[in-house]
Amino acid sequence: MPYTVAIDCMGGDHGPSVTVPAAFAFLRGHPEAEIILVGQEAVLTPLLAAAPDLAGRVRVHHASEVVAMDESPTLALKNKKNSSMRVALNLVKEGVAGASVSAGNTGALMAMSRFVLKMLPGIDRPALCPVMPTLRGHVYMLDLGANIDCSAEQLLEFGVMGAMLASALDHKEAPSVGLLNIGSEEIKGNEVVKQASELLKTSGLNFIGNVEGDGIYKGQADVIVCDGFVGNVTLKASEGLVQMLAHSLKAEFGRNAFTKLAALIALPVLKKFKARFDHRHYNGASLLGLKGISIKSHGSADVYAFEQAIARAFDAASNNVVERISARLAELHARREEKDAQHTGEESP
Amino acid sequence: MPYTVAIDCMGGDHGPSVTVPAAFAFLRGHPEAEIILVGQEAVLTPLLAAAPDLAGRVRVHHASEVVAMDESPTLALKNKKNSSMRVALNLVKEGVAGASVSAGNTGALMAMSRFVLKMLPGIDRPALCPVMPTLRGHVYMLDLGANIDCSAEQLLEFGVMGAMLASALDHKEAPSVGLLNIGSEEIKGNEVVKQASELLKTSGLNFIGNVEGDGIYKGQADVIVCDGFVGNVTLKASEGLVQMLAHSLKAEFGRNAFTKLAALIALPVLKKFKARFDHRHYNGASLLGLKGISIKSHGSADVYAFEQAIARAFDAASNNVVERISARLAELHARREEKDAQHTGEESP
Repeated sequence: MPYTVAIDCMGGDHGPSVTVPAAFAFLRGHPEAEIILVGQEAVLTPLLAAAPDLAGRVRVHHASEVVAMDESPTLALKNKKNSSMRVALNLVKEGVAGASVSAGNTGALMAMSRFVLKMLPGIDRPALCPVMPTLRGHVYMLDLGANIDCSAEQLLEFGVMGAMLASALDHKEAPSVGLLNIGSEEIKGNEVVKQASELLKTSGLNFIGNVEGDGIYKGQADVIVCDGFVGNVTLKASEGLVQMLAHSLKAEFGRNAFTKLAALIALPVLKKFKARFDHRHYNGASLLGLKGISIKSHGSADVYAFEQAIARAFDAASNNVVERISARLAELHARREEKDAQHTGEESP
Repeated sequence: MPYTVAIDCMGGDHGPSVTVPAAFAFLRGHPEAEIILVGQEAVLTPLLAAAPDLAGRVRVHHASEVVAMDESPTLALKNKKNSSMRVALNLVKEGVAGASVSAGNTGALMAMSRFVLKMLPGIDRPALCPVMPTLRGHVYMLDLGANIDCSAEQLLEFGVMGAMLASALDHKEAPSVGLLNIGSEEIKGNEVVKQASELLKTSGLNFIGNVEGDGIYKGQADVIVCDGFVGNVTLKASEGLVQMLAHSLKAEFGRNAFTKLAALIALPVLKKFKARFDHRHYNGASLLGLKGISIKSHGSADVYAFEQAIARAFDAASNNVVERISARLAELHARREEKDAQHTGEESP
């Protein structure tokens, strides 16, 4: 079961034309893995003909409905009980699959994951944790948009969840955890961040302190913790910046005959450069804090990108990410209760 | 006087070796301008010999002390009353200069500007407003770090101040103002941002609504409003991202003989590309909300970069930025008081 991934084949901008070939490609690279293709049987079953070599390792599980990319999460949760997104999550819930992947509507996936898989004790809603390139490798950053107005305790929980994810996926004993903050001399962050810093210091995590915005891409930490508002804005701003630079680079190289020739000569180098930061390579954000594994792929993912999201789901399941997070959070909450009890004891002797 | 800029010549990583040549370069391009070089006479006066053509338009004003780059803002404020930074601000306060520029310690400049120039009525501390490149030109973004934990009213004030700055410097009738927010379907921003959006809608500004992180660089608005925490993290993350990309591009082009040759051929194009986004061109952040003009240059600015900061100070002074902001804020506060009075009236008839 930990080697089985359930895939919402109908989600994303491209549906089965991307998700199914990605599943086949993934299986061919991972002989120990199995995949359940979830979606409309009439669409999916004929596609199996393209992969006779994978017989026995891939099967179709019917789901009659599809969540639209622009559907309201609340309505999708209420009305789409037979959607491929929901049925894939059900398979994880029932223990038939170890993880699920969807390129569908983020809000709906968040709501359904929370409803079907349930949250771990003490966690309110899933944190969205993508992996991003840095100068020194990559970084897990959370939360990227689900939790606005976080408490210090939530930021601590993000630290724990991110560290367990990094430790499981990258096989690091004690991944370093940084707290996203500003570096003004006078005022070091807002009240919540200051409190979170104190909590992280005594958490037993490998907490390296504050990290400023530029530290994200300098690779100063393996895990970076921030609230969902800051995280989302930072990620989107980075995407916008890269698009602006790429657009202008293209424009400069397209200016005249000489620059076009230069582009031709520089092309292999530019391609390698592009490959190094290819966002497709980093596709697949983890929804953390759930009692099961749910991975969100970009809606516009192509076959290569979606394959990476499947790989991340598989790695998370086969490395017991949920168990690790759950155990560590339980410890944390037990300690907190103990402290609270002590405080209450002190106040009323 | 509006055509006179006072320069803290001793501030920044390079001091007079950058600030003085930058002042000369600026004066040569702006025949209507005058400059007061503030700092140690013994150091500055001999440098005037290099610019006999500017006699009568540039003079030295002695200030015996220097604020160190790593000095505590509080201590600098208390102890460095004769510092070049403070004396330059005094000249603005006294009406001798129309604006001042410093490449010194940000915290100290913020504290001293606030203390010497004083804040406009109703404003608590200066907002730091740099100008940044976008796909379509440039954007003024504030606050970039001075005001953490902002109220909705503060965000509205940022909108007003940024719009007045853009309107004065870019001669735009009604610059568009966007509110930095996240685009999740379920939750659109935190409480403060939601309230700020309501206030901006009825502000009389050309408010275009929410802008997501990528909208900054897409040039979706002339002015983007956010709290200092989000702004600072976003700006720093952008800097880190650009550094990472530049570093990797260099590495790819330096890999072997072929790639080095490609680099040589692509160099003129890459240089043009680089020039388009040259951060030196965007040097000079405005401290807004003060009763005078104080411009912060990057500490590491070179002659070209510092010249841009002087130009921004000159433009702000000669286009009456403070008067415009002051008038619009007064309107805003009058309306708010009127509303509050109405509410009080309603509650206690």
